[in-house]
Amino acid sequence: MIFDFTYYNPTKIYFGRNAMSNLEGELLGYGNKVLLVYGKGAIKKIGLYDEVIKALENTGKEVFELEGIKSNPTLSSMLRGAEMVREHDIDLILAVGGGSVIDCAKGISVSAYCEGDPWKKYWEDFEAVSNRIVPVASILTMTGTASEMNAGSVITNEEKMIKGGRVFTPDVNPRFSIMNPEFTFSVPKIQMVSGVFDIFSHLCEQYFSGDDDNTTDYVIEGVMKSLISSAYKAVENPEDYEARSNIMWCATLGLNKITGCSKEQDWEVHAIEHQVGAYTDCPHGVGLSIVSIPYYKHIYKYGLPKFVRFAKNVWGVCAEGKTDDEIALEGIEKLREFSAHMGIPQTLREVGATEEMLPLMANSTKEGGGYKKIDRDEILEILRECY
Amino acid sequence: MIFDFTYYNPTKIYFGRNAMSNLEGELLGYGNKVLLVYGKGAIKKIGLYDEVIKALENTGKEVFELEGIKSNPTLSSMLRGAEMVREHDIDLILAVGGGSVIDCAKGISVSAYCEGDPWKKYWEDFEAVSNRIVPVASILTMTGTASEMNAGSVITNEEKMIKGGRVFTPDVNPRFSIMNPEFTFSVPKIQMVSGVFDIFSHLCEQYFSGDDDNTTDYVIEGVMKSLISSAYKAVENPEDYEARSNIMWCATLGLNKITGCSKEQDWEVHAIEHQVGAYTDCPHGVGLSIVSIPYYKHIYKYGLPKFVRFAKNVWGVCAEGKTDDEIALEGIEKLREFSAHMGIPQTLREVGATEEMLPLMANSTKEGGGYKKIDRDEILEILRECY
Repeated sequence: MIFDFTYYNPTKIYFGRNAMSNLEGELLGYGNKVLLVYGKGAIKKIGLYDEVIKALENTGKEVFELEGIKSNPTLSSMLRGAEMVREHDIDLILAVGGGSVIDCAKGISVSAYCEGDPWKKYWEDFEAVSNRIVPVASILTMTGTASEMNAGSVITNEEKMIKGGRVFTPDVNPRFSIMNPEFTFSVPKIQMVSGVFDIFSHLCEQYFSGDDDNTTDYVIEGVMKSLISSAYKAVENPEDYEARSNIMWCATLGLNKITGCSKEQDWEVHAIEHQVGAYTDCPHGVGLSIVSIPYYKHIYKYGLPKFVRFAKNVWGVCAEGKTDDEIALEGIEKLREFSAHMGIPQTLREVGATEEMLPLMANSTKEGGGYKKIDRDEILEILRECY
Repeated sequence: MIFDFTYYNPTKIYFGRNAMSNLEGELLGYGNKVLLVYGKGAIKKIGLYDEVIKALENTGKEVFELEGIKSNPTLSSMLRGAEMVREHDIDLILAVGGGSVIDCAKGISVSAYCEGDPWKKYWEDFEAVSNRIVPVASILTMTGTASEMNAGSVITNEEKMIKGGRVFTPDVNPRFSIMNPEFTFSVPKIQMVSGVFDIFSHLCEQYFSGDDDNTTDYVIEGVMKSLISSAYKAVENPEDYEARSNIMWCATLGLNKITGCSKEQDWEVHAIEHQVGAYTDCPHGVGLSIVSIPYYKHIYKYGLPKFVRFAKNVWGVCAEGKTDDEIALEGIEKLREFSAHMGIPQTLREVGATEEMLPLMANSTKEGGGYKKIDRDEILEILRECY
């Protein structure tokens, strides 16, 4: 089954060593008041903060700063940003950081002029946004979520202990994103490999659905193979420009909709991991890796031909003399080995989960799935298998 | 070498059996005067003309028609359209047809308000467009050029006997494109297979350059494999929806810039073919196929690792016991077999070229190339090899 689809992605990407040279030109296209959103200071260490401030000064901007956005950005920081936008009549929200910072900026964008409770309207009731949206742009320093080229915004409600994901319409996309692979060189290794698995998981969530001979599946296999090839190199040498460049672009392709065209998609691994993240604060990609292996072992029989194809086309598993089940399981095992080779923790225990948390995580996970619809009991079973 | 790049593609794609249901909604976003551009009446046979006119009436448009655009659209038809735009103060140019019709619409768009001779300014001197651009949109009925999602416009100057290609900035892209694979069912077989090879050639022109381990090369290999798989099916059964759908989307991906990111690229096969097309009126993809085989045999030694990779990854050539030269040549032979299997003519003679034309074609071809820069003598040699 080839699904009808709409593809529209108006983000302008500036990619490469000289990408920053485009910042001032782009800034001229917006009003004078800029809200600069960033994390815990990593951008100061690499000198990027100074470079951005200089560009903002050169273009005559008045700058307001929202600092300290955490990974798994919180509702409270988003609401603080929204207030700043209203108070200072901000013209552009410039996010400098990884996916968390950009997700937060998009949340601020739709919430600033929202009447009523934005969390309830947009992350719980999934209402369409009809209020004014403030333009967002990004300078990316950590790769994984593709937030630089989509309208996704994952926000953690600390009070409710729920991580809520929402994909808005493309007018919430960053208008432009600056991507210099060198900015990612200094990202700590655990964040880098977490990002790599996050990308891989996005590709899996889209790939493992459908029984057709779909162009998008071939594209996904290509991106997966490039990601694997470059991840091995980047783990050896984090300053391998070509490898980091490929990983960065694989991340964008992995969730800018191009690898989702005409696909039904799954996303249950993400649904489970969002709750792992809400309870443990473990890096998103690490949680995805931990959940993926038992999840795919749980469902592979229901999409066997695709799991066989995955093993052969992506991992080069030799099919000779093996049953389809054996081939499929060997593919999943290759994925586990890949994750382990990168040094990613393999159990929930290692990332701070306790046994008591598992039923709580399962209860707050949205039921769903691709090849197999799974229920709460099965989710708990999967969580126990990776505990 | 990974090249810096800018990626920006603001075309909105509506893809699938129900894609036309989006037309009226989109039309509401433009002014009242629409120039409808189409070919020699094929759209009337499949009922699409009536459907489009109905949508234009339902949205209260005043419609002006420019009919009879040929494949290899002429400068004179483009200038006639430009005059109509000026005369009637057109708000939207709606192209209904294949790449030629859309290319012509884009030419009209940039030429209508051009001061001076648009051919000289834009197709000869490659000046930037600073005059007013009239929005273009498209409804695609024939696949191959990706004109539905790029800013390319190839126009034939009948007087000068030159086919000129120009890629404008993305504001010349169609604002939206409607792509229903069923519209392509009735395209004559020679046009369909010509389109398939056109797509394949776009992918080759981008793929055969560089010596890096680039994500884009993996993506291209995926698109090539999908195209091959679906082309074989579509030749057997032109109404195989899945196959035609994949071919249509491969075409778009093949030249909407996503398969060109960070690539140096070649484009010499196209440079040669444009002159073949100017002299013979043979379908673009057929000319590309004829030129490709001797061209790649001529240059493969200069990019040997990529040609070896092409043979192995795209065509599954077994490398065991073979030299790299043998593997590379086997890959090129597989490409020739693919073209021959689809029933594409294999010589210039078959498409109406005479021996006297060959030096004229060579003289008007732009020198260039990817792995090897070739000169006029080599171009003539290649043309003689495929005569």
